Amino acid sequence: MHAGFSTLADLAARLRDLPAPDAAAHEAARVRDAQLTKPPGALGRLEDLALWYCGWRGEARAQVSAPQVIVFAGNHGVVAQGVSAFPPEVTAQMVANFEAGGAAVNQLARVAGARMDVHALDLERPTGDISTGPAMTEAEVIAALRTGWEAVAPETDLLVVGEMGIGNTTSAAAIALALFGGAAGEWTGRGTGIDAAGLDRKTQVVARAVAANAGATDGLEVLRCLGGRELAAMAGAILRARMMRVPVLLDGFICTAAAACLEGTQPGALDHTLAGHVSAEPGHARLLERLGKDPILSLGLRLGEGTGGVLAMGVVQSALACHSGMATFSEAGVAGG
Amino acid sequence: MHAGFSTLADLAARLRDLPAPDAAAHEAARVRDAQLTKPPGALGRLEDLALWYCGWRGEARAQVSAPQVIVFAGNHGVVAQGVSAFPPEVTAQMVANFEAGGAAVNQLARVAGARMDVHALDLERPTGDISTGPAMTEAEVIAALRTGWEAVAPETDLLVVGEMGIGNTTSAAAIALALFGGAAGEWTGRGTGIDAAGLDRKTQVVARAVAANAGATDGLEVLRCLGGRELAAMAGAILRARMMRVPVLLDGFICTAAAACLEGTQPGALDHTLAGHVSAEPGHARLLERLGKDPILSLGLRLGEGTGGVLAMGVVQSALACHSGMATFSEAGVAGG
Repeated sequence: MHAGFSTLADLAARLRDLPAPDAAAHEAARVRDAQLTKPPGALGRLEDLALWYCGWRGEARAQVSAPQVIVFAGNHGVVAQGVSAFPPEVTAQMVANFEAGGAAVNQLARVAGARMDVHALDLERPTGDISTGPAMTEAEVIAALRTGWEAVAPETDLLVVGEMGIGNTTSAAAIALALFGGAAGEWTGRGTGIDAAGLDRKTQVVARAVAANAGATDGLEVLRCLGGRELAAMAGAILRARMMRVPVLLDGFICTAAAACLEGTQPGALDHTLAGHVSAEPGHARLLERLGKDPILSLGLRLGEGTGGVLAMGVVQSALACHSGMATFSEAGVAGG
Repeated sequence: MHAGFSTLADLAARLRDLPAPDAAAHEAARVRDAQLTKPPGALGRLEDLALWYCGWRGEARAQVSAPQVIVFAGNHGVVAQGVSAFPPEVTAQMVANFEAGGAAVNQLARVAGARMDVHALDLERPTGDISTGPAMTEAEVIAALRTGWEAVAPETDLLVVGEMGIGNTTSAAAIALALFGGAAGEWTGRGTGIDAAGLDRKTQVVARAVAANAGATDGLEVLRCLGGRELAAMAGAILRARMMRVPVLLDGFICTAAAACLEGTQPGALDHTLAGHVSAEPGHARLLERLGKDPILSLGLRLGEGTGGVLAMGVVQSALACHSGMATFSEAGVAGG
C-alpha cells in the first residue's frame, strides 16, 4: 500500500484521523469471557489482553494467526562522540546475523511462530550528529517512515518492531528529554554497556543534542531532529499497524521512544500498542510511566532487536488461545456459569 | 519406575539424598553464554534461566523438547465448612473439561507444545475435614504421592504440575500457616471468589485446622494432615522430577504450598524448581518470599490448573532457544566477542 504521505505535514494530518477500536466487538468479547469455564477474573491480565486484542481486530473471538517481527537497522553520526561500547561496524555485522538467523530475536521469533523481516536503512550513510544539529532532513525522515510503513505485511495481525543501531540509546534518551523534559541524566543509561566515564560523556551529549535542536518540540519534528532512520521506520510501521487495526507490542527504550514521537504529535496515537516489557535501561520504566503503559513482562532484558516485544507475543497468543479456545460453562456442563 | 517408598519415613530418607545440579555443565553453559552475539547480560533473566536449566539437565547447550503438564484433582472434606464459592461437584465437572480439552490449561499447554495429563484422585471419597482432624491416613497420602511420582513421563524435560479441587486454597493456607506461622488471615484469600463473610469464615477454618492438627510440624506430616490428594500428588511429581534432574516451574498458591512441604522436611528439596508466576491470591507472594523464589511472571492470574506455570514454560523455552540457538561472535563475524 502506498504510504500516502510525502511531508511531515501530510503525516500529521493522518495522525489526526486514526481508527478507533470496535466497541461492539470489545463488548461481545467481554460477554464471552464471562461465560468461560473459570471464576470471573481468574485469568487476570490475560483477560484484559484478550479483550483489547478483540476490540482492535473487531472480532469477539479473535486468534493470533500471523504475528510479524520487523527489525530495522540504522547508523548514527553521534557515535563520533564516543557514546557506545561497540564500534558502528557492528550494526551491519548484526544485520548479517539477523539475516543468517543467528541473533536472539531470530530464536524468539521462531518460538513465537512469527514471521521475521529485516530492513537495513542506508547503513553506509549515518544520520547527522545530533549533538550539533538535526539527524535527518525532512526527505530523509519521510523515506525512513515509509520504509516502516511498507514493511508491515498485509496479513499481519500482531506486530513487534525492533531495532539495531550502535548509538541509538543516545538518540532515544534525547527524544525522551525533548518530549518530556527533566534532566538528561534521568533518561541516559549504559546502553550496550558503556563504563562510568562513558556514561557521563553520553549524558552530556544527550543534553547538547536537545540544546542543539531546541526548535524541535512537536513529536514528528523531534523524531526528525533527534531520531535515526531505524527509529523513524519503527514509527512508520506502528502508524501503519494502526491504520490496519493491528495491535502492536512495544519493545524496549528505543522502540518506545520512537513510538512516543507519534503520541507527541497526536495523543491517543499509541492506543493500539501495549508495552511488551520493561527493560533494564533505566529510562524505559520512566518513559512507559509517562505514556501510561504497564509492561506485560519484566525480565531485565536490555538487548533491543524486538526481543522483549516478541517474548510478550507468547503471552498475547496465550491470552487469545484461552479466550477463543476455552469451553463455556454450558458447553462443558460445569456449574457456576 | 516404582516409587520405592511405602511410608513417610521411607520418603524422608529419599529426601536426604537428592541429586545436585551438574556444576561442570553449568560452567560450560556460562562460558557459551559469554560468546553469544549480544552484550554481556543483555538477555537479563533469560540468561539465568538458561544456565539453571543447563545445570540441572547436565548439558551446556540444552533445549526443552518434551515439556509436560500434569493436572491432579481431589476433593476436600473441609468444603462442608462453607469455604468455597463453588460446589464440590465442580471438581469432577472440571476434570471432564480438562479431558475434553476445554479448560484454560489445555489452551496454554497447546501454545507451549506441552504434553498434558490429568489424574483424578478418588473424587468420590473426599479427604477428612481438616478443621477437625487429619486429611489423610499415612496409606492415603502415600498412595497420592505415588500417583504423582508415577505420572511424570520418562522423556519429560520440563515439568509443571497443576491442580483442581474445590476447597483447596483452604488446605494451602493451612499448610502455609503450619509451616511458616503468622496469623491465619495473612495466608487466607478469596480463592475462586468467596465473599467477605465467607473470607472471615474461611480464615477461622484455617486457624481451626492448624489447631486441630497441632502435632504436625514436619513437612510431610503437614502434607498428610492439612493437604489433599492432589497436593500430595503434586509433591510426589515434584520429587520424582528431582530424581530425574527435570526442572519444575511452580504454579500458584496451592502448588507452592504442596512443594513447601518437601522443603519443610528437607531444605534444598526445591532447588530444581522456580516460581512460574506470582498469583493474585495474597498468600502466594508471601509464600514465595519465604521460599526465596522470585517469580518469572506477574500477570494477576488466580486460576490454578497449572496455568501460571505453563505460561512461564514459554519463557523458559525461549531462554533455551536463545542460549542454544544463537550464533557466537566468532561464528557470526561480529566484533566485540
